[in-house]
Amino acid sequence: MSREIYRLTEADLEPLAVGAALLGTGGGGNPYVGFLRAREIFRQGAAVPLLDPASLTEADWIGEVGGIGAPVVSIEKFEQGDEGTRALRAVEEVLGIRVVALISGEIGGANAMEPVITAARAGLAVVDGDGMGRAFPEVQMCTFFIYGARPSPAAIADEKGNVVVYRNVIDMYWLERLARHTTVDMGATAMLALPPMRGDFVRRTAVPGTVMQAIAIGRTIKQARAKRQNVVDRVLETTGGRLFFTGKITDIRRHLVGGFARGEAILSGTGDWVGSEGRIAIQNENLVLWVDGVPVIMVPDLIVNLEFDTGEPLTTEVLRYGQRLAVLGLPAHDLLKTPEALKVIGPAAFGYPELSFSPLGAAA
Amino acid sequence: MSREIYRLTEADLEPLAVGAALLGTGGGGNPYVGFLRAREIFRQGAAVPLLDPASLTEADWIGEVGGIGAPVVSIEKFEQGDEGTRALRAVEEVLGIRVVALISGEIGGANAMEPVITAARAGLAVVDGDGMGRAFPEVQMCTFFIYGARPSPAAIADEKGNVVVYRNVIDMYWLERLARHTTVDMGATAMLALPPMRGDFVRRTAVPGTVMQAIAIGRTIKQARAKRQNVVDRVLETTGGRLFFTGKITDIRRHLVGGFARGEAILSGTGDWVGSEGRIAIQNENLVLWVDGVPVIMVPDLIVNLEFDTGEPLTTEVLRYGQRLAVLGLPAHDLLKTPEALKVIGPAAFGYPELSFSPLGAAA
Repeated sequence: MSREIYRLTEADLEPLAVGAALLGTGGGGNPYVGFLRAREIFRQGAAVPLLDPASLTEADWIGEVGGIGAPVVSIEKFEQGDEGTRALRAVEEVLGIRVVALISGEIGGANAMEPVITAARAGLAVVDGDGMGRAFPEVQMCTFFIYGARPSPAAIADEKGNVVVYRNVIDMYWLERLARHTTVDMGATAMLALPPMRGDFVRRTAVPGTVMQAIAIGRTIKQARAKRQNVVDRVLETTGGRLFFTGKITDIRRHLVGGFARGEAILSGTGDWVGSEGRIAIQNENLVLWVDGVPVIMVPDLIVNLEFDTGEPLTTEVLRYGQRLAVLGLPAHDLLKTPEALKVIGPAAFGYPELSFSPLGAAA
Repeated sequence: MSREIYRLTEADLEPLAVGAALLGTGGGGNPYVGFLRAREIFRQGAAVPLLDPASLTEADWIGEVGGIGAPVVSIEKFEQGDEGTRALRAVEEVLGIRVVALISGEIGGANAMEPVITAARAGLAVVDGDGMGRAFPEVQMCTFFIYGARPSPAAIADEKGNVVVYRNVIDMYWLERLARHTTVDMGATAMLALPPMRGDFVRRTAVPGTVMQAIAIGRTIKQARAKRQNVVDRVLETTGGRLFFTGKITDIRRHLVGGFARGEAILSGTGDWVGSEGRIAIQNENLVLWVDGVPVIMVPDLIVNLEFDTGEPLTTEVLRYGQRLAVLGLPAHDLLKTPEALKVIGPAAFGYPELSFSPLGAAA
């Protein structure tokens, strides 16, 4: 019965938040506020069991909770606290079940913390895995839905006490559309509980090990800083990633389109890339890196911008003229690179039909 | 056990639709499409018991269903058929109950037909009454909510198969806001099931007798036309209303504001009102009639525009330059004129804080 592979305690929360920020590939929302909220609960003695996804069976119902909305608002509009629990209880009520554990739909960014917070409050476990292995801008961009999870019942709760249940929706695109607009009404941030899934389905479709991976990345960054080591090098060792560009931002364009931050950053090469131009396309997350016009990393592979000197993971909204970046590429999990997955999260799905997905390092 | 005061059959549907159009006071949506849908079901043999609201007890759960959205769209975007039933089942599921009868929230306009249609399909009764005795533009403008009905659970269903449940909402304004935007996402029309109410509450708060009243008005109009009688006079006799103005439209302004048709019509007096100017303010429904600058009818009393020659009830969207109107005033039910009610549906609630409600005929 060694389903429990680890027990999350207060000491894991900051590394988890830092690692999650890196896996957010520029988006996913800042996990820092969630870290503070989690710390308050864990300081009262909470310890959350982390379950091996390989140990899950059909008898286990697994819940999924996460924030939905505009990350920038969540920094100022705090939660009341039990939004995740209320949304979760509403979907359990429809199905007449209780979940044994929660999983994050998106380990990259703020939604790494939400299942941990709700699990700590509700006395549940958390599964060591997630549905993206990174961050993506929309709820259907997730292995669970790509591989056939039902789109309802889902529920959304706000800090005022409103709970809206998506009792039946015809597909994930409808859930995304309806929930997104309800979130705007609720004040641009809310908590979403997605349909509970059976354990055997989660075992087959989750990107495994990503909670421990985020913690490992976060610890690496903290230790490297403490020891004044080169953070970029240490992150590359820990993640198995590769450095694809270093440069200085010479132009940055951002505009809000349909609730998403879209834009691009232009970089003038430094170090090994002097004389080259880098270009990064953004929709909340970093989508594509071109070097001298040649696409070298593209979704679903991970494009991570670290501040060159400090190794700090940079979200797309803090990029600014003159910043020096190290642009890392990390390979996405194989579950994200199947033909079914690429239809939903490949370059064409993000408006780049001219790019045929080429995995990281294929041309290396 | 004479709870059943009447049994609605196919022959009642057209009079109900015509009378409901008149009680819509210019708004409420056209009941004609609902009449056609109802007729299809009743032709297959349905007959719906009509219950006396005075007979309802605490043991009876009463459901409320109605269309929500832009009436103009409902003329072109037809229903799949069981939207009302699916929305109703969703709220019953949350409460773990089954309703025995349905009631209309709004007898004026299209929502007179919806409970009849859903009741015919689901084998339920209909209560002879409603929550307005007329039409109003927003769901909270209803005796049930004015007198304390809970705002949740409510549910909304579209023709595609989506069902959204408002499991908990903090008040009716939030329900209105959330459901209105979900309706827009669903294509601007959908069916809404409001929270089932206990029979004793409905007995105390419903405007009684309005289904039979609408049928009586509809029959009167049909008969007067068949006998080439003056329709306006016959309607005044049947409703106990009074003629407040006759005139020709010389100016009509309409604009869409926040999903509502707002505007005003200017009339040049005819007959007894030659030399006078009439002015009617509109927000979906007719709100206020001024004659020579003096307010003579105002919400919640009913302002009904009949085409002068035919007696046809005119909705605000078909008013046009040159039309000759008879403007009738019908007294609202006392439940709409209490201080609690006037806060929600008095002139100030519609943007006329300078008007203190003066009931119809008070100055006569």
